[in-house]
Amino acid sequence: MKYAIIGTGAIGGYYGAMLARAGHEVHFLLHTDYDFVKQNGLKVRSPKGDFALPHVLAHSSVQTIPSCDVVVVALKTTHQHLLAQLLPPLINEQTLVLLIQNGIGVEQDVAEMLPQAQLAAGMAFICAAKNEPGVVDHLDLGLLQVACYNAHEQRVAAMVEEMNQAELKAKMVDYQEARWRKALWNMPFNGLSVALNAQTNELVNNPHTCQLLREMMQEVLNAAQAMGVKELSMDDAESLIQMTKSMKPYSPSMKLDWENHRPMELKYLYTRPIEIAAEKGVNMSHMRMLEAQLHFMEAQRA
Amino acid sequence: MKYAIIGTGAIGGYYGAMLARAGHEVHFLLHTDYDFVKQNGLKVRSPKGDFALPHVLAHSSVQTIPSCDVVVVALKTTHQHLLAQLLPPLINEQTLVLLIQNGIGVEQDVAEMLPQAQLAAGMAFICAAKNEPGVVDHLDLGLLQVACYNAHEQRVAAMVEEMNQAELKAKMVDYQEARWRKALWNMPFNGLSVALNAQTNELVNNPHTCQLLREMMQEVLNAAQAMGVKELSMDDAESLIQMTKSMKPYSPSMKLDWENHRPMELKYLYTRPIEIAAEKGVNMSHMRMLEAQLHFMEAQRA
Repeated sequence: MKYAIIGTGAIGGYYGAMLARAGHEVHFLLHTDYDFVKQNGLKVRSPKGDFALPHVLAHSSVQTIPSCDVVVVALKTTHQHLLAQLLPPLINEQTLVLLIQNGIGVEQDVAEMLPQAQLAAGMAFICAAKNEPGVVDHLDLGLLQVACYNAHEQRVAAMVEEMNQAELKAKMVDYQEARWRKALWNMPFNGLSVALNAQTNELVNNPHTCQLLREMMQEVLNAAQAMGVKELSMDDAESLIQMTKSMKPYSPSMKLDWENHRPMELKYLYTRPIEIAAEKGVNMSHMRMLEAQLHFMEAQRA
Repeated sequence: MKYAIIGTGAIGGYYGAMLARAGHEVHFLLHTDYDFVKQNGLKVRSPKGDFALPHVLAHSSVQTIPSCDVVVVALKTTHQHLLAQLLPPLINEQTLVLLIQNGIGVEQDVAEMLPQAQLAAGMAFICAAKNEPGVVDHLDLGLLQVACYNAHEQRVAAMVEEMNQAELKAKMVDYQEARWRKALWNMPFNGLSVALNAQTNELVNNPHTCQLLREMMQEVLNAAQAMGVKELSMDDAESLIQMTKSMKPYSPSMKLDWENHRPMELKYLYTRPIEIAAEKGVNMSHMRMLEAQLHFMEAQRA
């Protein structure tokens, strides 16, 4: 299959490089790294073995990318408004658009913007970073959960199979369950780590915030249940609390964004899930308070 | 009447000095200022006229204070545990204990500690500060609302009359209504100003936090209603928002406590009202989140 990678950061760079190494035609859309990657290609440093791709199909604009079988969107959702320009030139009736992005409501909004697009959701369980141009540091893990949104299931399954052949660990999962399961950790920990300027270990080890995290997870469970997800329970929440207690001190992505003066992914981590839950009659009260606090912090800093 | 002032800060110092100036026997319990006030007396600087009391009845311990007709408690509630030692030597069957303190549940807890005490609540609407030993700066306002808790109404009315004769503007009000009306502003603004490191004008002028403040006020209204208060409505909340918009930038007392590394009055501004509301089936969800955040901030700093 022919792939396009929209957003060649750590995630897009890693998955794209793995596919290119396996021999697939992979077109990378690049921004700041374009000149460097055009000249030097991409490099992946990984505990599973380093590798270099001296020549990759680098693009500074979607105009030079042909229409593809799979378009992988690995942009931060704070750039979501760009997709109305970036996607149309790349997709045909057969194209599968895989949104490897954080949050709830991403697929719904892209589907509204591009009703003709066949969409799948990607949940990346990977620790990776891009610390220098053209180099992806793959630190740990790497599972990619893939879920149909409005794409044909067979189409998605074929891509997942190809990914597994390329030594990308990919797995088909249920859409609603997977998105809300990820939100179960993401929604409480991301925002609270910014609002309280704290790492995950500090939040779980204080009895007041640990109880608060449990209540926030309960709100996510209530929303998930209203969306028809039957598999998630307070046991899953408790496991995530215990897992977080056993993790090294960790700064969630929103905290890193905040510290690096990047906009925070408030819309798809808070605003949209809160709206979607409210449409089903679920009031995410703590989350709404957190959303307001984060908006205030962003406005104050600006 | 014979008065004792427990806690000679700005509030206790001002009301006590006004009563002493009017010729009443007023015993002041002092801590850090004891030596200075014993030697130099008390001074009040006020737009209504400065005055000095070169000789006041200063005490460093309750053991030297006789039992009184009225004991005015003007301690921060963070020192509430001291009352079990401080009050018993001062009260007899006739003594009225006036608690000029912030929050909800103060009277209930003192009544449990000292079932024999006749209690009244005092809500001070005054801007005053103690910036140097023995000197109270009275900046603005001065109304003292007084409400019966379990004291005889006539006993309280007599004290209020005496206070008005001493040019203290005092007024009898309904207990539940007055306490919850004060909480309507205090609970949202105090904690949020600390959690977001912001003054009141910043909080009301941002649309996200202004909406949050309205929701937090709605929680206070729900609690007040469950406690039988019929006079408070969202119109009062809206008036307070508009009043705060028209005020100069202001740091609520909890923010001043936080900035000056003093403990915050979390118990009577959050923990107890949240508990009291919960007993009536009202869930103060935003307030519980705020309480957890403030506890976390205090623990992190310690």
